[in-house]
Amino acid sequence: MLYTAAFSKLIETFQKMPGIGHKSAVRIAYYILSLSNEEAEDTVRSILEAKQKIRYCPICQNLTETEPCEICSNPKRDDSVICVVEQPKDVIAMEKTREYFGRYHVLHGAISPMDSVGPEDLKIKELLARLQSGEVKEVIMANNPSIEGEATAMYLSRLLKPLGIKATRIAYGIPVGGDLEYADQVTLAKALEGRREI
Amino acid sequence: MLYTAAFSKLIETFQKMPGIGHKSAVRIAYYILSLSNEEAEDTVRSILEAKQKIRYCPICQNLTETEPCEICSNPKRDDSVICVVEQPKDVIAMEKTREYFGRYHVLHGAISPMDSVGPEDLKIKELLARLQSGEVKEVIMANNPSIEGEATAMYLSRLLKPLGIKATRIAYGIPVGGDLEYADQVTLAKALEGRREI
Repeated sequence: MLYTAAFSKLIETFQKMPGIGHKSAVRIAYYILSLSNEEAEDTVRSILEAKQKIRYCPICQNLTETEPCEICSNPKRDDSVICVVEQPKDVIAMEKTREYFGRYHVLHGAISPMDSVGPEDLKIKELLARLQSGEVKEVIMANNPSIEGEATAMYLSRLLKPLGIKATRIAYGIPVGGDLEYADQVTLAKALEGRREI
Repeated sequence: MLYTAAFSKLIETFQKMPGIGHKSAVRIAYYILSLSNEEAEDTVRSILEAKQKIRYCPICQNLTETEPCEICSNPKRDDSVICVVEQPKDVIAMEKTREYFGRYHVLHGAISPMDSVGPEDLKIKELLARLQSGEVKEVIMANNPSIEGEATAMYLSRLLKPLGIKATRIAYGIPVGGDLEYADQVTLAKALEGRREI
C-alpha cells in the first residue's frame, strides 16, 4: 500500500465529488493536510452547517435557510405566474435576468426513463397542490432544452390543460451575441419558426 | 444575494481547494447537499481523521500514521543510502519503480528565494541529524528537475562533501517511450551528455 489508510480514505472522499479525478483528489488531500487545525475545522463546519441549515422551501422546493424561502415570502412578487425549472441553479439564472417577477417551482430533475426518473420522482405533486387555489393563471416551462426537459414540459402541460391554466415554454432561438454561422441547424430552424414581426 | 449564506460559505470552502474554480465549487456544493446525512458525516470524518492520524515521520518526514513510518521501520531496507525528495508524493513515485530499497528523506519543498523559501524552511536540519551516525554512504538527490530543485540539490551536495558522504543526482535524459522529435533541446543535450556505452 502506497498511501496510508486515512490518506487513501481522504482521496476516495474527494474522488466521489463531481468533476474530480484521481489526480485532483490527491492534490486536494495534500491541501487538506496542509491546513491548520482551525482551517480544517472551518472546512468541516461549512459542510455540516450547509447540510443542517439548507432545506427545500415547502412551497417552491428551492433551497432555502428560511421557511418559506425569500422569493415565496416576498409580497411584491406576482402570484399569478409560476416559472418551473429543473434545478435551484436555474432559479439563480432566471433571477439574474431581472426580468421575471413571478414565483418559481423547482422540480429537482427531469423525466428520464433512461435513468429511471419518472414523474413521481419530481416535485410535480407539490406543483399541482399550488395550482388548487386558482390564483395561478400561467405556468412558464423553463425546463432545459434537452430531450428530458422537453418531455417533462410536455408532460406538465398536459396536466395543466384540464385545469384551465395557460402553459407556456420559453423560446428557442439563436443566443444573443452568438454567431449565425455557429448555430446548429435545429436551433436555427427553431429560431426561424419562432420569428416575430419587428 | 442569490445563494443562501450557508451555501455561499460552502462554495467558498471548495473554491479554496487547488484546481477548483467557481463553477466546480458550485457543482460540488450541490453534490454535498444531495448527500444523505450519513454520507456527509463520512465526508467530514475522513477529513478530520486524516488531520488527526496523519503526521510526519520523525525520521524521514514522510506522511505516516505510525511512528516511525513503514519504510523507516522496515529492517530490510538499506541504511547506507538516503534518497532525498521534495514531497511525499515523490516517495510514492520512487516506490512505484520497485528498484529502490534504501531510505528516504522528504524535504517538504525546495529552496526558492522568489517564494521566500530558504534552507531553514525545509527539513534539512533533520537530514543532517540522520547523517551523524556515519552509516549513510550515499545521498541520492531526487529533487525535481526545476530551477528550485536543482538549487536545493546543489545546496545539499555542498553540505555533504565535508562529511565525506557521496552525493548523487538522478539522471536527466529522454523519457522512456518518448519521441526524440518532441524532446526539448535542454533535455536532449543532457541526454547526450549523460550517454553510456552499451
